[in-house]
Amino acid sequence: MPLLKSWIVSANTPDTDFPLNNLPYGVFSTDDTDDDDPHCGIAIGDQILDVTYLEQEGIIGVGEDFVFDVPFWNIFMEEGPKAWAVFRAEITDLLREGGNPLLREDPDLRAAALIPMERAVLHMPFAVAEYTDFYAGRHHATNVGTMFRGPENALPPNWLHIPIGYNGRASSVIVSNTDVRRPLGQLKPHGTDTPVFAACRRFDFELEMGAIVGQPSEGMVSVADADAMIFGYVLLNDWSARDIQAWEYQPLGPFQAKATATTISPWIVTAAALEPFRTSTPAREVPLLPYLREPGPMLYDIALEVALQPEGAAKETVISRTNYKEMYYSAAQQLCHHTTSGCPMQVGDLLGSGTISGPQKPNRGSLLELSWGGKEPLTLDSGETRSFVEDGDTVTLRGAALGEGYRIGFGSAVGRVLPAPDVPDWAK
Amino acid sequence: MPLLKSWIVSANTPDTDFPLNNLPYGVFSTDDTDDDDPHCGIAIGDQILDVTYLEQEGIIGVGEDFVFDVPFWNIFMEEGPKAWAVFRAEITDLLREGGNPLLREDPDLRAAALIPMERAVLHMPFAVAEYTDFYAGRHHATNVGTMFRGPENALPPNWLHIPIGYNGRASSVIVSNTDVRRPLGQLKPHGTDTPVFAACRRFDFELEMGAIVGQPSEGMVSVADADAMIFGYVLLNDWSARDIQAWEYQPLGPFQAKATATTISPWIVTAAALEPFRTSTPAREVPLLPYLREPGPMLYDIALEVALQPEGAAKETVISRTNYKEMYYSAAQQLCHHTTSGCPMQVGDLLGSGTISGPQKPNRGSLLELSWGGKEPLTLDSGETRSFVEDGDTVTLRGAALGEGYRIGFGSAVGRVLPAPDVPDWAK
Repeated sequence: MPLLKSWIVSANTPDTDFPLNNLPYGVFSTDDTDDDDPHCGIAIGDQILDVTYLEQEGIIGVGEDFVFDVPFWNIFMEEGPKAWAVFRAEITDLLREGGNPLLREDPDLRAAALIPMERAVLHMPFAVAEYTDFYAGRHHATNVGTMFRGPENALPPNWLHIPIGYNGRASSVIVSNTDVRRPLGQLKPHGTDTPVFAACRRFDFELEMGAIVGQPSEGMVSVADADAMIFGYVLLNDWSARDIQAWEYQPLGPFQAKATATTISPWIVTAAALEPFRTSTPAREVPLLPYLREPGPMLYDIALEVALQPEGAAKETVISRTNYKEMYYSAAQQLCHHTTSGCPMQVGDLLGSGTISGPQKPNRGSLLELSWGGKEPLTLDSGETRSFVEDGDTVTLRGAALGEGYRIGFGSAVGRVLPAPDVPDWAK
Repeated sequence: MPLLKSWIVSANTPDTDFPLNNLPYGVFSTDDTDDDDPHCGIAIGDQILDVTYLEQEGIIGVGEDFVFDVPFWNIFMEEGPKAWAVFRAEITDLLREGGNPLLREDPDLRAAALIPMERAVLHMPFAVAEYTDFYAGRHHATNVGTMFRGPENALPPNWLHIPIGYNGRASSVIVSNTDVRRPLGQLKPHGTDTPVFAACRRFDFELEMGAIVGQPSEGMVSVADADAMIFGYVLLNDWSARDIQAWEYQPLGPFQAKATATTISPWIVTAAALEPFRTSTPAREVPLLPYLREPGPMLYDIALEVALQPEGAAKETVISRTNYKEMYYSAAQQLCHHTTSGCPMQVGDLLGSGTISGPQKPNRGSLLELSWGGKEPLTLDSGETRSFVEDGDTVTLRGAALGEGYRIGFGSAVGRVLPAPDVPDWAK
């Protein structure tokens, strides 16, 4: 699919994340209007299309009620896939060269409805109903398993049969550019017999994609139906306290180690925008049970990178490059599996893909893997080294599906790590 | 504390769950009014006090806005502990012998505000924000550990240091009297090498208490502050698919095995009502880290029982009797630990205690334990046996704190198990 040309010229440059082919959905506010409440908007080039304003003016509409004057896209998601497609076509027509002239030829309307992105503050784009995190990247699971159990037992016996996942904590999902405070927690230092309560010493990031469930389930859904229920995708950094996790996770899995924060990028890139970039999951080593088999390609070719910048450093270092297509299980397979028990899925559920490592060392999606558990510290461009994330470090995830002459970009998911809080007196 | 006498005579009988000392909060609807929407009410004897109606009539009120004409107590919870205490005193005065005569002496008002419980349908009493389930009963953890790892390694090394928990699925929490459908899932039959997709064969209940978080957290909270944040308690049956769990739970914990349903009792018994029944957690085998030490007694003496009734059976069999005071960790300790990572807790979060088994076989809180993994089937009064729950079985949890001449009852948490859905063609 070629670039769709917009009359907004910044949307036609090859380096923008937000050409007309993308149209990602976000929530923004500005300081300079009377109505400063966060509300829905769409990124286009270096502008944000204020769909809340257009809805109020009667220029666009979805169903009978207003759906955009809220700080989340959940109400719009509830309208369902047909409404999603109609709306996307309507916005495309409003912004394309030679399309609906209503906005293009009305300078007052343009001035009111197009907000320069540099003037906007971006907020969480949707209300997270519940958050599930998976462990569905084979390179990651193999690396972690090799470190902890040796290469012969790297993958657990169920791994090639089940998209392994656990429930995370929705209340800790935050939007890009929110600082993250290093957690306190219970951990057992190497070589000691008893745990201590202290600041995490092995704080890490995890490079993931997040799939947003846009329709509810009732009973079990097929992979094909699950795929149609997914509204869009974001970048996702599942911050992880490795030392807290090592001590707590047996027998019921990660808990406080993953509850400090999960950072997502601020723009929901729709499944519709990613459609031309579909690709298949890798060949199966053992056949999947029939319910998990995919009727078509359900991953996407999305180039991903992680950058780390220490406090005071002149520039960042890109420390990992990988691709979403490295996943063993797609979000549709994960969502299908999630419903097998009859578990009701809801609009706004967020599914973390699992850490997306590639086959080689420079493709690893966490510092745990990049530094091999701290044994092989990574050297940054500045000469500094890193085994885990240090206070003051800023970790940035970026991603884009690459078309011919354009990119479906995700923007970035940025988090700076602040020092841990002091241990309160009553905890000493 | 003696029985507080009410002018509603059914509240003064020794066998009612709902004397004036209790005043539990629920959500109800009736078929015989115009306004049939579920809304807030309080149980008193065999009646429900329609606080929504009283609020609309201006007879009671909390703050400036209406808080009761909604199908959940979350808005009231947000008002905080002072408002909770003021409201409880106000309702107590309205219903006690010799108290505020406004309702007692107005026949029309009484007729409108007091609904016979037998005419009401009970709904979920609050909106579950997120659901966390713990593993904090020592007898249960020891029983399960002994079955799976032998008596020497029964308790995991962290168990005496951490209230072990995992995030559950809030969307699957249902109110008493909602049928539960046996789940499908991926499981590996004994003696086979590959998994199958089939109906669960080892479906079980877990007898637990649920603590409801009534105030949000910001940063880490102490055990004392956590205790004050807990609004009340319900009975909780954490339905568990043991065979699905056995295959899926390594390395990230239970997932689909626990996502079919969690049944709670319909009345929130407040911490205030339970205050006279506080009791201490058991002696510690190893000292807890300071942050987890309790400044006072934080468990409650609540007698609990489980009954099972097969389809068509003339009556139920009580298969377990135990007490909430058997827990090793209190809900306040669990909530404190939950915030150590900085995890934001929210109004409406539900914390499952973990299965409450007592020291002897008749005190075990799950069929897994009662039948010792199916090796020692339980005999019901009818002569039938049970290793796990069968289709058509109704499982009922009951509980009450026992005062002198009265009981602070929880009502019951009832669930009937329906046969599994057919495996869809696309999953065969």
